[in-house]
Amino acid sequence: MDNRIGRLAMLLLLEEGERPLPEGWSYCIGKVGAMDEQKVVAAIETAARSNHIIRSNVYRETHALYHAIMEALHGVTRGHFQLGDVLRTVGLRFAIVRGTPYKEASEGEWIAVALYGTIGAPVKGLEHETMGLGINHI
Amino acid sequence: MDNRIGRLAMLLLLEEGERPLPEGWSYCIGKVGAMDEQKVVAAIETAARSNHIIRSNVYRETHALYHAIMEALHGVTRGHFQLGDVLRTVGLRFAIVRGTPYKEASEGEWIAVALYGTIGAPVKGLEHETMGLGINHI
Amino acid sequence: MDNRIGRLAMLLLLEEGERPLPEGWSYCIGKVGAMDEQKVVAAIETAARSNHIIRSNVYRETHALYHAIMEALHGVTRGHFQLGDVLRTVGLRFAIVRGTPYKEASEGEWIAVALYGTIGAPVKGLEHETMGLGINHI
Amino acid sequence: MDNRIGRLAMLLLLEEGERPLPEGWSYCIGKVGAMDEQKVVAAIETAARSNHIIRSNVYRETHALYHAIMEALHGVTRGHFQLGDVLRTVGLRFAIVRGTPYKEASEGEWIAVALYGTIGAPVKGLEHETMGLGINHI
Amino acid sequence: MDNRIGRLAMLLLLEEGERPLPEGWSYCIGKVGAMDEQKVVAAIETAARSNHIIRSNVYRETHALYHAIMEALHGVTRGHFQLGDVLRTVGLRFAIVRGTPYKEASEGEWIAVALYGTIGAPVKGLEHETMGLGINHI
Amino acid sequence: MDNRIGRLAMLLLLEEGERPLPEGWSYCIGKVGAMDEQKVVAAIETAARSNHIIRSNVYRETHALYHAIMEALHGVTRGHFQLGDVLRTVGLRFAIVRGTPYKEASEGEWIAVALYGTIGAPVKGLEHETMGLGINHI
Ligand SMILES: [Mg+2]
Ligand SMILES: [Mg+2]
Ligand SMILES: [Mg+2]
Ligand SMILES: [Mg+2]
Ligand SMILES: [Mg+2]
Ligand SMILES: [Mg+2]
Repeated sequence: MDNRIGRLAMLLLLEEGERPLPEGWSYCIGKVGAMDEQKVVAAIETAARSNHIIRSNVYRETHALYHAIMEALHGVTRGHFQLGDVLRTVGLRFAIVRGTPYKEASEGEWIAVALYGTIGAPVKGLEHETMGLGINHI
Repeated sequence: MDNRIGRLAMLLLLEEGERPLPEGWSYCIGKVGAMDEQKVVAAIETAARSNHIIRSNVYRETHALYHAIMEALHGVTRGHFQLGDVLRTVGLRFAIVRGTPYKEASEGEWIAVALYGTIGAPVKGLEHETMGLGINHI
Repeated sequence: MDNRIGRLAMLLLLEEGERPLPEGWSYCIGKVGAMDEQKVVAAIETAARSNHIIRSNVYRETHALYHAIMEALHGVTRGHFQLGDVLRTVGLRFAIVRGTPYKEASEGEWIAVALYGTIGAPVKGLEHETMGLGINHI
Repeated sequence: MDNRIGRLAMLLLLEEGERPLPEGWSYCIGKVGAMDEQKVVAAIETAARSNHIIRSNVYRETHALYHAIMEALHGVTRGHFQLGDVLRTVGLRFAIVRGTPYKEASEGEWIAVALYGTIGAPVKGLEHETMGLGINHI
Repeated sequence: MDNRIGRLAMLLLLEEGERPLPEGWSYCIGKVGAMDEQKVVAAIETAARSNHIIRSNVYRETHALYHAIMEALHGVTRGHFQLGDVLRTVGLRFAIVRGTPYKEASEGEWIAVALYGTIGAPVKGLEHETMGLGINHI
Repeated sequence: MDNRIGRLAMLLLLEEGERPLPEGWSYCIGKVGAMDEQKVVAAIETAARSNHIIRSNVYRETHALYHAIMEALHGVTRGHFQLGDVLRTVGLRFAIVRGTPYKEASEGEWIAVALYGTIGAPVKGLEHETMGLGINHI
């Protein structure tokens, strides 16, 4: 079975249907629209916690997720790590996948955050697609 | 028919099969492995020209493509716009799609550059997936 | 006649007088003072629309202008794409020029955004000059 | 006597005790907790002025300090020059040292800004250490 | 007489003629074409030294110039601080001006580095204009 | 006993003497001088492997170290993630510490990379101090 965690996370967004994951993996999907980057981060973190993708009381899991989110946002923002501050807004769907993408047991668990949606001026239609992927060990 | 140019470009890479595009659209697919970011840019530009996705003798088309490549590389490099300089290498497949993603004729043509592959140390296996998408009007 | 669109845009700011442009070109000039980068972007976009430099109902024109503004702001902010967030303010004049800087008709229209003014602490006099130029095909 | 101004500034923070500085040098120490980067900059600038490390009415001294603060914040923020905007907060102690780290009198005075503390989610304990150093001629 | 050091530096480039500077100010003009950012920095530093704009044996003057060059290059590179690494080249003229732009004697001397020219693919004509300005106390 | 892993890593560099670490922790110290950022990364990675701070055959450990190095280099390079490309060189000492900085066993092991030395023109003496710290879960 396919164990490419980033590809799976992205396909969960792009195909919008069910998709079998390897046994023992977990994932969740959500969406967020915001001019405020902070809200994007918060929405993804909250979804990961409430869906038990990460354990809320273990900082290393929050830390792993946080850096994966930051990496995914680079793909979305492409050079200016800002939204409303540069007068743009996003409408994003996100997928968070936790699993074991490497064969060796010693590689342990990893987390992928995929983002897909639109970015543009805060006016309906003045926007184009955007995408991002972050991957981290957890 | 689906006219989400970025989604289509990314699915061309993730599904690795044929995929119908709207009439009048063009695309090409290629791959490049490099520690040298310059080679990644050159491989994509060369593919776009030799497959007639852009016209070689029209600078505005090269300019549109170039900035789309730069934006896609932000997703791949996630904060340090470098490969070998920070001791890492990429193995990427890329898709370039040119089409008309908006209904209004006045919106004209746009170009999407999607990248998907691995990034990591210059040692087989010490790598994880990476992805990027850039979109520009052309 | 001189068709260097960036040079013309900057001279419109630096010389503060009238300056003939090639036939068929358009331009506008404005000013904005802000600690909020969003306001700088909005002021330039609004001036471009109300002076009919770009067509408000065509996204590709807004998109072209937006990226030219972003590029010009790199020159102004020089490494931290922020104003008030890093406790500084700008007083800027801006020029937007739309024209055909290349001889070949196929190169079509381009847009230049030039910025010139001061940047510094939010205290009169604690500031130095700053400048930026962004150019894009439209 | 040791004239490594950056090392001295950092040791003032890490050792939390008194430490003799070369004759004629001045320094101050303070702390700031914030989700707002602006407040961090303001706290350091205010401390430098009220402790007479810089002269408030001389812009070149504010300018020198400001760029040293910006450089130190790169070490603290490590790639995203933001705090609350990316949903994180800092608790920092800072040391500002002004002195003559070079033997030649012509090299004049320099200023060092050292930062040390924690960075993380706005939840107690979800954080790790962070550090930064900026140095400038004054 | 006009003491806006940045404006003067840029006009020296844009107007290509002689231009009187305030008494006691010094400047030089040069040009450099390169795919290698290092060569741009070296050309400017060498010109500043050989024209006695800065004193070669005083590090603080080199330091002031260096950071002014870095700031000017932000305007030229607009988000990716690279040339050949991202497959582009520049043809630049540069002006370096040293003077006293503030009325108060305590503000002392400052240095401005202005850059103007073209940036683009390493093919004649596939390029557009670019500009940058850096200012520092010296 | 002090379990602030970042502080300990930096003090190992700044004090240059022996320093007791908590039981079960490991560390190594090394140095590297380079105009080539790649060599800095390689020197730190090699030291970590040959001193058994990380396991060479486990990618997640290399990945954790790599991102800690990247973060530490932000402190050293302060805005331009480059050395020779912008005509500067570093002479650095580095400390790598692996340990358990949190009380809860579930927080597991973390790694800190501290850097301290000089940065400047490739001419002896034209340089100032620089510092960086990166911390990651491993
Ligand atoms: Mg990684
Ligand atoms: Mg865009
Ligand atoms: Mg361009
Ligand atoms: Mg410096
Ligand atoms: Mg400044
Ligand atoms: Mg972290």
